[in-house]
Amino acid sequence: MAQDKSKMHLAVFAIGTGHHVSGWRLPEAKTGALDFQFFRQIAETAERGKFDMFFLADALNAITTQHPSYIVRFEPLTLLSALTGVTSRIGLAATAITTYTEPYNLARYFASLDHLSGGRAAWNVVTGAFPEAAENFGRTPHPDHSARYAMADEFVKVAKGLWDSWEDGALVADKKTGRYLDTSKLHVLDHDGEYYRVKGPLNSARSPQGHPVIIQAGASDTGRDFAARVAEVIFAVQQDLETAKAFREDLRARAKSFGRDPNSIKIMPGVAPIVADTEEEARAQIEKLGQFVDPVTALRVLSERVGHDLTAYPLDGPLPDFPPSGIMQGHAVNLTRMAKQYNMTIRQLRDYASAAQGHRLIWGTPERIADQLQEWFDAGAADGFVIMPVWFPGAFNAFVDRVVPILQKRNLFRTDYEATTLRGHLGLERPAHAAAAPFDARLETTRG
Amino acid sequence: MAQDKSKMHLAVFAIGTGHHVSGWRLPEAKTGALDFQFFRQIAETAERGKFDMFFLADALNAITTQHPSYIVRFEPLTLLSALTGVTSRIGLAATAITTYTEPYNLARYFASLDHLSGGRAAWNVVTGAFPEAAENFGRTPHPDHSARYAMADEFVKVAKGLWDSWEDGALVADKKTGRYLDTSKLHVLDHDGEYYRVKGPLNSARSPQGHPVIIQAGASDTGRDFAARVAEVIFAVQQDLETAKAFREDLRARAKSFGRDPNSIKIMPGVAPIVADTEEEARAQIEKLGQFVDPVTALRVLSERVGHDLTAYPLDGPLPDFPPSGIMQGHAVNLTRMAKQYNMTIRQLRDYASAAQGHRLIWGTPERIADQLQEWFDAGAADGFVIMPVWFPGAFNAFVDRVVPILQKRNLFRTDYEATTLRGHLGLERPAHAAAAPFDARLETTRG
Repeated sequence: MAQDKSKMHLAVFAIGTGHHVSGWRLPEAKTGALDFQFFRQIAETAERGKFDMFFLADALNAITTQHPSYIVRFEPLTLLSALTGVTSRIGLAATAITTYTEPYNLARYFASLDHLSGGRAAWNVVTGAFPEAAENFGRTPHPDHSARYAMADEFVKVAKGLWDSWEDGALVADKKTGRYLDTSKLHVLDHDGEYYRVKGPLNSARSPQGHPVIIQAGASDTGRDFAARVAEVIFAVQQDLETAKAFREDLRARAKSFGRDPNSIKIMPGVAPIVADTEEEARAQIEKLGQFVDPVTALRVLSERVGHDLTAYPLDGPLPDFPPSGIMQGHAVNLTRMAKQYNMTIRQLRDYASAAQGHRLIWGTPERIADQLQEWFDAGAADGFVIMPVWFPGAFNAFVDRVVPILQKRNLFRTDYEATTLRGHLGLERPAHAAAAPFDARLETTRG
Repeated sequence: MAQDKSKMHLAVFAIGTGHHVSGWRLPEAKTGALDFQFFRQIAETAERGKFDMFFLADALNAITTQHPSYIVRFEPLTLLSALTGVTSRIGLAATAITTYTEPYNLARYFASLDHLSGGRAAWNVVTGAFPEAAENFGRTPHPDHSARYAMADEFVKVAKGLWDSWEDGALVADKKTGRYLDTSKLHVLDHDGEYYRVKGPLNSARSPQGHPVIIQAGASDTGRDFAARVAEVIFAVQQDLETAKAFREDLRARAKSFGRDPNSIKIMPGVAPIVADTEEEARAQIEKLGQFVDPVTALRVLSERVGHDLTAYPLDGPLPDFPPSGIMQGHAVNLTRMAKQYNMTIRQLRDYASAAQGHRLIWGTPERIADQLQEWFDAGAADGFVIMPVWFPGAFNAFVDRVVPILQKRNLFRTDYEATTLRGHLGLERPAHAAAAPFDARLETTRG
């Protein structure tokens, strides 16, 4: 699968209420936490825009203290399965948590999704950030960060082994001879590890992509190593070009140290674009959204991210010069830099921080949005972007209808799908079966 | 929901190769173990026939020694989710095994399916008959029958509690006030039982049906009690009218003893219909299918079911008069009775036993098939039937196109859907939320 490195990749991060914490309150916004038609429309719009991927986050508990979309929601694998029937090309990426599921079950769900979609499945491997989830599974306390990553590491290894239970072409179904499955292509995993004991084989034939695409979002040192070993797509959170570039270079170097081709990892930072006819109109949209936010909560969020209590400072004044923050350093550096660059008041900065759940917010004319994406792409800070619309459907439609054509005109994005699978869109190799792969590749499969 | 007791209910049991062990080998047969379009066609045909339900079995291991459809297959919840987008009325029933899944996860999948389908989800609760599954979950040995049922009992109680995490109407999304969820309608389960500890709430609002329809297939004494307590549909295996009638009466009596309305349980025996222009043609179809079967295996299966080794007897001779069998008594009685009634040779009986996985096989003209279903329905031996086509698509098309119209003409089956939910089709009440239900109903909910 030859990859066209001159093109960027695009994903849409779909969410029931839009990414802005109050995006759903806009009069023209639709909400659809549990409305299939809401998500269907987003998927169809993304496919019209030739996006690589439709992405869903997840958690295994109802989180009532943060973004409204985290309280009740569709289970991602079932929602994506439902979307297979109404889409034909776009990749379908589900977040699924390793800590509280069984490798056999989860490997099956993803194999099934890959078969259903004709090779469009991706799995965002997460270990579960919310300790409250443990109480829903009778397994308190929530394992600590390093234990969760060790479990995830073994979990992914088992899943890959199960996906290789059958070599390609094992399902023969030859009416003449009566041979249904070629059992010489059967491989029993017999995994006996630290966290999991799984015999196999999986009761699914090898799926169209061989293995669904693996996504990861680890930012810590452990997370980066894990991502560099197993991830094919990385969802990044960096907000400024230099940090993003350093992150991408670090991940590529780590991947190389694990014997992987750095180009087999696509780094895609999240970005929330506000498209308008003028920059002033875009800024006005952010302010309008900000008016719906509970100001006490919003200022608390901003204070946390800047690392200093802002309640004593005038809302319409500038952000004071603080000494460096000890927590959320990335956010603090980035927000302080932004406030200076755009001459923003505390109120404006508060509205900005509510807009994209801590991800990068960009705004302006369609050309200006395209410029900002191109700048990162050209500088080697990103292989593509995860678009996080602040509300649906308007903010996403504006990106697809007004920004995507500019990217296409600049030859930065495909004008039509050239492949049928997500691996094809991303320029990722289909993993060979361990039994069919040359010796070196076999070693790598074991390691990954 | 007023139930029209003069009408029967129909489900189709979809399977990748047809129910006849060699059905897939017919030249005109399609196979589709992992082919979405194959299952889509069955679902569309069933919906055209106004069926109540599309049903999928499941197991958590690859079973290579029995029916070919048990080796590799779609995971049912993902396949049914995919079918939500291409069907609009038919119920979607997934088998899911309690023993090796987590109540929080499974309750979520079914709630999600019920939301996706607009209230068409059903869950066939099974405990997992195959001990090999234990090895895929590192939990050997497979718990024994009574432990599995005790787990399932608690599992279903937890699932129902999680489905009631939010009362109806909790998702407000009022743009004006900014109130997204009405937290006064939130109920934290806080379950701490023998097998499961689950806090809740579920991160899904109450689904269109309140609770997905619960299906069970227990035949043992423990199984019958469990079914009588929790099931709303029972898949039965009885092959002769008197046994079926006694089973239905027993289940209804048990349900009554648990304080339930016996009409809130629908008993649906499995049946494989072979429709042809004449009875001779139907018999010829069975023989033709029999020619594809491995004769050694098939005779072994028949010997097991009759309870005596048949290898020493001439294939084209009659079944000898054996003393009563000590194993599989139901099958032995039924097969012996059939062989006498139809004057069948051992070869014919062997072919019969391969045809429907131990379920009832009926054959003949469309009128004769309709007669046989009506006979059971009128006699109180069945509330409806699970149709198990011996091959796809032809054997199922023949039933839908030639038998269903006769049932409709006789006023035994609906001519169009009158409801939008599966509960509606089946004439089952939507369970009230515990907090909204009167005191007695609340007790029942706790008990169930």
